[in-house]
Amino acid sequence: MSVVSKGLENVVIKVTSLTYIDGEKGILRYRGYDINDLVKFGSYEETIYLMLYGKLPNIKELEKLKEKLNEEYEVPQEVIDAIYLMPRDADAIGLLEVGTAALASLDKNFKWKENDKEKAISIIAKMSTLVANVFRRKEGNKPRIPESSDSYAKSFLAASLSKEPTPEEVNAMDKALILYADHEVPASTTAALVASSTLSDMYSSITAALAALKGPLHGGAAEEAFKQFLEIKEINNVENWFNEKILNQKNRLMGFGHRVYKTYDPRAKIFKNLASTLVEKNSDAKKYFEIAQKLEELGIKYFANKGIYPNTDFYSGIVFYALGFPVYMFTALFALSRTLGWLAHIIEYVEEQHRLIRPRALYVGPEYRQYVPLNQR
Amino acid sequence: MSVVSKGLENVVIKVTSLTYIDGEKGILRYRGYDINDLVKFGSYEETIYLMLYGKLPNIKELEKLKEKLNEEYEVPQEVIDAIYLMPRDADAIGLLEVGTAALASLDKNFKWKENDKEKAISIIAKMSTLVANVFRRKEGNKPRIPESSDSYAKSFLAASLSKEPTPEEVNAMDKALILYADHEVPASTTAALVASSTLSDMYSSITAALAALKGPLHGGAAEEAFKQFLEIKEINNVENWFNEKILNQKNRLMGFGHRVYKTYDPRAKIFKNLASTLVEKNSDAKKYFEIAQKLEELGIKYFANKGIYPNTDFYSGIVFYALGFPVYMFTALFALSRTLGWLAHIIEYVEEQHRLIRPRALYVGPEYRQYVPLNQR
Ligand SMILES: CC(C)(COP(=O)(O)OP(=O)(O)OC[C@H]1O[C@@H](n2cnc3c(N)ncnc32)[C@H](O)[C@@H]1OP(=O)(O)O)[C@@H](O)C(=O)NCCC(=O)NCCS
Ligand SMILES: CC(C)(COP(=O)(O)OP(=O)(O)OC[C@H]1O[C@@H](n2cnc3c(N)ncnc32)[C@H](O)[C@@H]1OP(=O)(O)O)[C@@H](O)C(=O)NCCC(=O)NCCS
Repeated sequence: MSVVSKGLENVVIKVTSLTYIDGEKGILRYRGYDINDLVKFGSYEETIYLMLYGKLPNIKELEKLKEKLNEEYEVPQEVIDAIYLMPRDADAIGLLEVGTAALASLDKNFKWKENDKEKAISIIAKMSTLVANVFRRKEGNKPRIPESSDSYAKSFLAASLSKEPTPEEVNAMDKALILYADHEVPASTTAALVASSTLSDMYSSITAALAALKGPLHGGAAEEAFKQFLEIKEINNVENWFNEKILNQKNRLMGFGHRVYKTYDPRAKIFKNLASTLVEKNSDAKKYFEIAQKLEELGIKYFANKGIYPNTDFYSGIVFYALGFPVYMFTALFALSRTLGWLAHIIEYVEEQHRLIRPRALYVGPEYRQYVPLNQR
Repeated sequence: MSVVSKGLENVVIKVTSLTYIDGEKGILRYRGYDINDLVKFGSYEETIYLMLYGKLPNIKELEKLKEKLNEEYEVPQEVIDAIYLMPRDADAIGLLEVGTAALASLDKNFKWKENDKEKAISIIAKMSTLVANVFRRKEGNKPRIPESSDSYAKSFLAASLSKEPTPEEVNAMDKALILYADHEVPASTTAALVASSTLSDMYSSITAALAALKGPLHGGAAEEAFKQFLEIKEINNVENWFNEKILNQKNRLMGFGHRVYKTYDPRAKIFKNLASTLVEKNSDAKKYFEIAQKLEELGIKYFANKGIYPNTDFYSGIVFYALGFPVYMFTALFALSRTLGWLAHIIEYVEEQHRLIRPRALYVGPEYRQYVPLNQR
């Protein structure tokens, strides 16, 4: 057995043609395309096609993909009912796990390597339905299935928020979806890979990913970052808060730091830009954005020398908040987008390089011990 | 990045004082106690105590543990309702994922390192309730919560099968629970570790483990092994079947082979012994047991030279079948027992050696590509 670094740091779990990260230079590419280009020129649907099929779609291919998404929003009634059985204050990612687990329980004849990509598109559509209805459940609204439209982001926002979103809102949601779509093999993707490596089904693999995403060190960080802004409350309170909570009490600054990036996360820059325009119409969001910027300054001042910079979750919450989502939904919105990356990675793994994932533990416990009967202990 | 063997073979993901495996000699120990001794002299409750607290309990400690288990069988009504919402033919592990996900959604204020072991005991009790009611749902019976008794195995069997089990049945179930209780870090435990490493909650970590257990290369193998016996039907058909399905068509012999054991799995021997006495009262089970023994002979004849021997899932199904469980429940019964191992490993990891689990993927895809507008593709 080879003893390796803690947390599987720098251990290669698979090869990939999906996502390239340069953590020193702050570069992120999906199948060779720079994240900045994709956000500037592309759409989430193009990103779906790119990740699943390896190239950007032409007009016809894109139309077909959009049609397929529109056709697949329906889910069995039991799945919605299961989400609505739980109380309004249930945890959003827990509810999403209920939804994907319910779909796993119904998908009894699942087989790998049979139309994997079409199945992935169906799951991506159904994830929109699940996330929208987790939100609706928690808000006390009736269920609503996303309706056909020319944009996945638009259908999702309309179903979630019960109103026609503005073009600016659709655009921001679409960009957020592109930004969160994949990030190589973080914990959630690793959990999905481990599950799929046993030849379990796709929905169960997504359920495993959600279970890992939920933690505050991973997808849960956007919520934790925003809770800091809420706690700080006023721009002139940032410095005190930082000195007390971060420097004195040695809490981690949430939305900062990354296993791979030792410089500014390129996604954080784009989220910050997106936020800066969106908040112009929302004074509340604007206040938090200003707090965030001030906090960022202090964070960089104290932590940049350790390679700790804002990560993608630092500003994403401002964007989601400005779109009308409460803090408790941020991780679920991350999940909505990342479902693409999870599926693309497990399909790549099972189709091209499959092997059961089974590491080892190094035993450091007691040697052989003789059993002692109960009455002699 | 260090390029490592596929499927994380021989990569160390954690250190442990829980379980020791010698895959060459076929030795398995829980905290130093040989699996043969524990099955011969111990009980599942003693195993729970041993794994969580590091030593075998004295009489008083054991009584307290049993009391605590008896107190914790209740689950919120919504959780049972969610399982019963799904149709009878839903997948058993999918239903179990629904149950643990529902519990995750309700456990909103979960914190690590606060009474972790007490929480684990509560989860172990509740898992009995979930598995029993997944079975009852699928059989079309009304829900039933396990009742207090002096044995976890007994309470579980009584709730599942709606009848007082015989002492022999309780004994067999208890041994099966000990045998499946832990096995270091297979895929399911790895999935649980990855989820807990983000500081997600215990129920979500169990959900991730279930998602990985489900696959036929892992926990699903007991069902697949038994399906072979069913397909073979008659003892004089074993050889034909083996020649055709395994040698000609090159299917894997299910219930054979293991990443770590290159010899006879010690658990398989014990399950075989258990089966041999149990089937004496059940002619149907006896037929399958005889088929299994003949199939084992052939498997060993052809595969032993490659280090491929019966694993724990080869004979476990015969035991479960003789106890009155249909094939579709075998993986869920594995899960019932392994919940202990999952919890013991994640507690050990988070309390003593926590770090975010975040491996890498080796990028082999296209270099930087310039974005091409849609109408020029
Ligand atoms: C994401 C994260 C877990 C990755 O870290 P990692 O590679 O596992 O690094 P470690 O946890 O081993 O931390 C390394 C060092 O950096 C420090 N550090 C890391 N992130 C920090 C943060 N956000 N604030 C303050 N210190 C931090 C650690 O305290 C540790 O310091 P030490 O060596 O003096 O003990 C970590 O940066 C973190 O917890 N960030 C906050 C949560 C977050 O935003 N997660 C979303 C990631 S996209
Ligand atoms: C459990 C298992 C996945 C572990 O195997 P692994 O370490 O990942 O080994 P690999 O899948 O790389 O297989 C190694 C070789 O053994 C062969 N092999 C492994 N298990 C086999 C089986 N059950 N029947 C026939 N051949 C088998 C493989 O075909 C491969 O042969 P090759 O090198 O000629 O291609 C594998 O033994 C298996 O699939 N067993 C059947 C399912 C099962 O019973 N699982 C429960 C485990 S407790």
